[in-house]
Amino acid sequence: MAAITPKYSINAESMKKSQIREILKLTQQPDIISFGGGLPAPETFPVEELRAASERVFVKHAARALQYGTTEGDKALREALLAYEASHGVNAAPENLLITSASQQALDMLPKLFLDPGDWVIAGRPTYLGAIQAIQAYRGKILGIPFGPENDGFDMAELERRYTAAKKQGAKVKYIYVIPDFQNPTGICWSIKKRKALLEFSYREELILVEDSPYREIRFMGESVPSIYQLDCEGAAQGNVINLKTFSKILAPGTRIGWMLARPDIIDKFITAKQSMDLCTSPFTQLWLAEYMAAGKLEEVVGRTRAIYQKKRGYMLEQLERYMPARDDISWTKPEGGLFLWLTLPSSLNADELLFKAIEKKVAYVSGSAFYFDDPEYNSMRINFSYSSLEQIGEGVKRLASVIKEALA
Amino acid sequence: MAAITPKYSINAESMKKSQIREILKLTQQPDIISFGGGLPAPETFPVEELRAASERVFVKHAARALQYGTTEGDKALREALLAYEASHGVNAAPENLLITSASQQALDMLPKLFLDPGDWVIAGRPTYLGAIQAIQAYRGKILGIPFGPENDGFDMAELERRYTAAKKQGAKVKYIYVIPDFQNPTGICWSIKKRKALLEFSYREELILVEDSPYREIRFMGESVPSIYQLDCEGAAQGNVINLKTFSKILAPGTRIGWMLARPDIIDKFITAKQSMDLCTSPFTQLWLAEYMAAGKLEEVVGRTRAIYQKKRGYMLEQLERYMPARDDISWTKPEGGLFLWLTLPSSLNADELLFKAIEKKVAYVSGSAFYFDDPEYNSMRINFSYSSLEQIGEGVKRLASVIKEALA
Repeated sequence: MAAITPKYSINAESMKKSQIREILKLTQQPDIISFGGGLPAPETFPVEELRAASERVFVKHAARALQYGTTEGDKALREALLAYEASHGVNAAPENLLITSASQQALDMLPKLFLDPGDWVIAGRPTYLGAIQAIQAYRGKILGIPFGPENDGFDMAELERRYTAAKKQGAKVKYIYVIPDFQNPTGICWSIKKRKALLEFSYREELILVEDSPYREIRFMGESVPSIYQLDCEGAAQGNVINLKTFSKILAPGTRIGWMLARPDIIDKFITAKQSMDLCTSPFTQLWLAEYMAAGKLEEVVGRTRAIYQKKRGYMLEQLERYMPARDDISWTKPEGGLFLWLTLPSSLNADELLFKAIEKKVAYVSGSAFYFDDPEYNSMRINFSYSSLEQIGEGVKRLASVIKEALA
Repeated sequence: MAAITPKYSINAESMKKSQIREILKLTQQPDIISFGGGLPAPETFPVEELRAASERVFVKHAARALQYGTTEGDKALREALLAYEASHGVNAAPENLLITSASQQALDMLPKLFLDPGDWVIAGRPTYLGAIQAIQAYRGKILGIPFGPENDGFDMAELERRYTAAKKQGAKVKYIYVIPDFQNPTGICWSIKKRKALLEFSYREELILVEDSPYREIRFMGESVPSIYQLDCEGAAQGNVINLKTFSKILAPGTRIGWMLARPDIIDKFITAKQSMDLCTSPFTQLWLAEYMAAGKLEEVVGRTRAIYQKKRGYMLEQLERYMPARDDISWTKPEGGLFLWLTLPSSLNADELLFKAIEKKVAYVSGSAFYFDDPEYNSMRINFSYSSLEQIGEGVKRLASVIKEALA
């Protein structure tokens, strides 16, 4: 009897594996210098304080931490997060908040709740791969909008042009997805002008606007810009902005805890979806973070993380300047925060193909093409500067430069 | 300007909130005796050993535990689980195993990977509410099969009859979902004869067979029956069985860790789906459980849990015997394991309506109707015996009996 062939759904056939996740495996080989993953620096993890917080959970809340919890999240963490938001100028009520199993769960819930197959999402060209994958898994489509030449947000004229054209062809656009603070993959930070313009656009077109803010707190230079969620709250208060936050970049990704801010009726819909997805996020990890936050050291850790990344980013820019061929058609972004910069190569080069040579030379990155939903550009690389040591950054940039020089030769 | 109305997907409109989750909230009122939730007994949690294991994670693996991990799961826990399975007579290779964010995530992945809207799943009538909700969220349908009068599995003649009728009407059936060991909600354990018959049926009809086994280890009397996954491995090895396991009932639900066994190509498809759903399950909680398992005390804890539940189950049966009206049309199952029994009332009574009276009298259960995908029966209750103390069981049964007596009067 021949083995049975599973009959998958149409959606399943359109799911794609992530290049990044495969590259993450490479980073486990000790001799590769990886600029690939989006990994925070392990030296930023406050191990001792997290250990002490975990200890307190066992002493104070063992039965609650080890039991099932409510879908919306544990009260202690919810309260701590509302206080944290308030201290950052965001006034939200309990019914505006949902704990998620890190932001990726929220990114999975969005297309699940909003997209019928063939529906559209407006997003950057390029944008975060995990969002693209989640949308693809529901057969959603992405209307990609390029960034303006000033690297301060979408090219708004292009947004209008592409949106109008798509609507004319009958496209059902359901939401906008942006990462205004130090975007993954480009490191771009949106100006207040562009944030306001996008918010106005979302009002006019009656679209949900998803603001993904994993790196917002990781600004190491320049001045903070209000979040789009704040701009809506303090302005027309249309309540169409959904803000995604996570501990992954401000504390530790291994916690797998994120949170979402939105209008109560929208939060309620997400709670219903989350029930059937995982019942609840781990009460243990939630209480662990609540205990950690109660100790009042989070801001200090974020400050230290900022300083570390600023140094690494500065050193990487220096090394790029030093080793990369000096040509007008090779350039890179100079982010004021976050974990990534974006390197653009001459259009004759293909970063997908270069990756094999880079790995031979024991350096890795993510090819820029991974961050396009369709019609990718191949002459770019996402470079992570948070994970590697200064020494590795120096050596890795040297290796990468030699790969590029050889390809140009 | 009026607030924007979100335009949800068709799938989102068919999502339903869980009565159980709402009832869980009631259990937080201290004066209610709740037989509602599926909560393990807190006294079974090995708090001190879990604390020590967590401590060891910080000492030995802090950076790995706090970082992102691979989607398939941490190596240490994967190895511990393969050894655990082997010690229970299940020989699986690493490529047969996927760590999930508890079983509910697997229950969400199943319809995501297998169902197009309108596709069918064969499942018990009644069956686990969380599985029903997950299927509904993708607009799947359930072909409900009643259990035979011997409470040893499906009524196989009914299975054939309903399946043939559904196929004749063009139904696309994609998988079978069963909980053969101490089913939620009825407590029924499938006989080996019925397990084999269902496996043969799945071979003949070339269907994926999902065996959900959260309670398998919680057998406190009678003899263990091979799992359907084992029967397939040791027999025709068609590889069409997917087995879902979890720490929720054998250790602590707050860990939110489960695992899945299946054929490598099926596991690979689930890894792709999981990538876009949560990137990875918390490496911290995974390493925590790996450390806990390495200490070799899990079997002891499960043994203690069995003894506690056997006592509670026995006491509940005694009290039901003592207080429930002695009538042929009031009966309950006498499960040999698990957390639940199923109480059937005269068909004139409606357990949905009785619930309000029960809550007035400070006792709660889940109305049986919640466990039907369609055309529910209203004269049954799911009664949990794991969570309450013996004293609460005694008092709660008394209260419940008085609610029923009053309704009959």
